[in-house]
Amino acid sequence: MNNHDDGQNALQELQTLRQQIDRLDHALVLMLANRFALTRRVGELKARADLNAFDPRREEEKIRDIKLLCEQHGLDPVLMADILAQIMRETVKNHERIRAEVTRGA
Amino acid sequence: MNNHDDGQNALQELQTLRQQIDRLDHALVLMLANRFALTRRVGELKARADLNAFDPRREEEKIRDIKLLCEQHGLDPVLMADILAQIMRETVKNHERIRAEVTRGA
Repeated sequence: MNNHDDGQNALQELQTLRQQIDRLDHALVLMLANRFALTRRVGELKARADLNAFDPRREEEKIRDIKLLCEQHGLDPVLMADILAQIMRETVKNHERIRAEVTRGA
Repeated sequence: MNNHDDGQNALQELQTLRQQIDRLDHALVLMLANRFALTRRVGELKARADLNAFDPRREEEKIRDIKLLCEQHGLDPVLMADILAQIMRETVKNHERIRAEVTRGA
């Protein structure tokens, strides 16, 4: 096979890989939207039962579990912890907003 | 139903929700590990074909598509863009490392 064929094959494979990455990112958006729907419900339950929006023990357990999972699957645990911390900060903000709404409604 | 039953039901629902969130996070780790496997192959192809590790047009298109998807699914586009930027920074770093390996091996 000559260099031109090699280049063509590489470009075709690149395109296929990018389609797979795009589909994966699509699924990622759906999963995160789903995660925020679940944590929204958690926020409502916590607000009604007057539990703290931030639960340090639960967070610690999660971070430990996720670190282990990352190691099992060859994913950088620091990167995943950063992403999860970002999601959790947003979740705590949402929970505080929900609590304020429930308190106003009470 | 009395307050005690309400509290018990809330705790049970909370536990179910947390299990769902944990399963989702598990899937998230697998998907990200898969994403890095795909971009590793992209990095190899780019290094061999001597293409730039950073592709601004591809990044711009992705960010635009993801923003639209987030709006469709009620996910904060700024949060998702931040997460994706983090993943892409890591990907570019990996690509540069792969390029250095391929160059050394050439």
